Amino acid sequence: MVSKSIAVIGLGLMGGSFAYALHGFASYSIIGYDTNENTLHQAKAYGAIDTAANSLIDAVADADVVLYCSSPSSTIANILKSLPYLKKGCIISEICGAKKDIYDIIMEHLPMDLEYIGLHPMAGKEVGGFINADSTLFQNAGFIMVLPENYKVDTVIFMKSLCKHVGAGRIVCNTPAQHDDIIAYTSDLMHIASVALCVSYPQNMTMAHTAGSFRDCTRIATIDADLWTELFVKNVESIMPHLRQYIDNLQDFAHALAIDDKATIHTFLRIATENKKDMLRS
Amino acid sequence: MVSKSIAVIGLGLMGGSFAYALHGFASYSIIGYDTNENTLHQAKAYGAIDTAANSLIDAVADADVVLYCSSPSSTIANILKSLPYLKKGCIISEICGAKKDIYDIIMEHLPMDLEYIGLHPMAGKEVGGFINADSTLFQNAGFIMVLPENYKVDTVIFMKSLCKHVGAGRIVCNTPAQHDDIIAYTSDLMHIASVALCVSYPQNMTMAHTAGSFRDCTRIATIDADLWTELFVKNVESIMPHLRQYIDNLQDFAHALAIDDKATIHTFLRIATENKKDMLRS
Repeated sequence: MVSKSIAVIGLGLMGGSFAYALHGFASYSIIGYDTNENTLHQAKAYGAIDTAANSLIDAVADADVVLYCSSPSSTIANILKSLPYLKKGCIISEICGAKKDIYDIIMEHLPMDLEYIGLHPMAGKEVGGFINADSTLFQNAGFIMVLPENYKVDTVIFMKSLCKHVGAGRIVCNTPAQHDDIIAYTSDLMHIASVALCVSYPQNMTMAHTAGSFRDCTRIATIDADLWTELFVKNVESIMPHLRQYIDNLQDFAHALAIDDKATIHTFLRIATENKKDMLRS
Repeated sequence: MVSKSIAVIGLGLMGGSFAYALHGFASYSIIGYDTNENTLHQAKAYGAIDTAANSLIDAVADADVVLYCSSPSSTIANILKSLPYLKKGCIISEICGAKKDIYDIIMEHLPMDLEYIGLHPMAGKEVGGFINADSTLFQNAGFIMVLPENYKVDTVIFMKSLCKHVGAGRIVCNTPAQHDDIIAYTSDLMHIASVALCVSYPQNMTMAHTAGSFRDCTRIATIDADLWTELFVKNVESIMPHLRQYIDNLQDFAHALAIDDKATIHTFLRIATENKKDMLRS
């Protein structure tokens, strides 16, 4: 039997968690690469990867699957740099939180003998780095799969089995544009809302003044500023309508509150409650 | 030994949880009252209260402590109705989420031989009613104590021991105005932010498109519309500056995003992260 391998490029929270969780997937061995030597060393020492590659090219050259797990800009750079070295039939994938840009670039440069399927696992933490990687990070998480127009059914089935192995719950397929529009709401807007809640706060408050509402609404305000600046800027077109709508909703609420319009406030709360219940059923 | 008793008026999520958690506090027996006969019956049947009173007046007439646990308007009505029937030396308390109004009314009507200390336990759930009451609801929760100007030290110590018995973590003392201003941020604004996130949403999203950010930021959007309309209207003066500031923060962010001002976006994220860390240390 010819041994097969998956290369994981970037071993932070996400790549590290994939590496841990991919163990036992068919007979694939896990090759890892990270520009941070200490991270690479830890990933090998802690058993997240079977082999630590010395370079990006070394990591991908013999791989049957390459999963790029760094920031969008770094992922794009790594893909463009490594494409010429990938072997025929290799499947490439990435986990960027904004898909339109990266999809267009990949479609433009992908040789005919390679395949691409984009992934977006709906999982994360407010802390990053390999040290927080966890084989259970993707347990029951939704996975969004972005397919090229000429996708091969076998490749989709294979990637779904890979996702299921790492713990995926529901897997949905979207176009890059659908992905970006929905994620602009379910993820980007949530992060912006949370960050804006923490940009100003009353100086005389203490944690004794807070309960679950504060804890949950502000959890993700501790945010990786480099990564998320990139993500927000990449997805700006999809984010803006949702962000404008959110501001409009808040202004309408503020107006109702200012003029003591209890009926409108009550309607707001009722609609939000009904919408949330509808979303939970989706 | 003369038996002592605490009356809990209103046996929903909060009152029910207090009733459960107060068991074993010194030698106090727990008298309960609720206008909903089914709730009152359940509270007795499930052991949350020792005695089910037939009326508000019956409940409070012999009590050494009366804890009013219904909505602000109902709490104010119940206090005014029951004040003439309370026995000398009785301590009255309530758990309203907005204190200025209720404090002024109580100070205006409280006879000299009764005492008042307001409480606000920083605990709750996105589901209400006695059926969701839980003896552990207040475990490690911060408690805000609102003291009248002529408070008695012994009464403060007694009420602190009561709070500790039900599970209070840190207990802080505030004036009604301080309480309302801080809570307008730590609780009211969080609820408004969460509700506004759910007033509109993309129709093609599914729960597979969501992760922890969506779950946490929208958890409290399923909200008791009657109760929270009251709370928001009661605390409107304190809420408006925080809400306006929040909208300003979002507009500044939207502007930076629209003009691709990465430096400003990055600064936003960095400030939010630093502020959140500062808050966690408070």
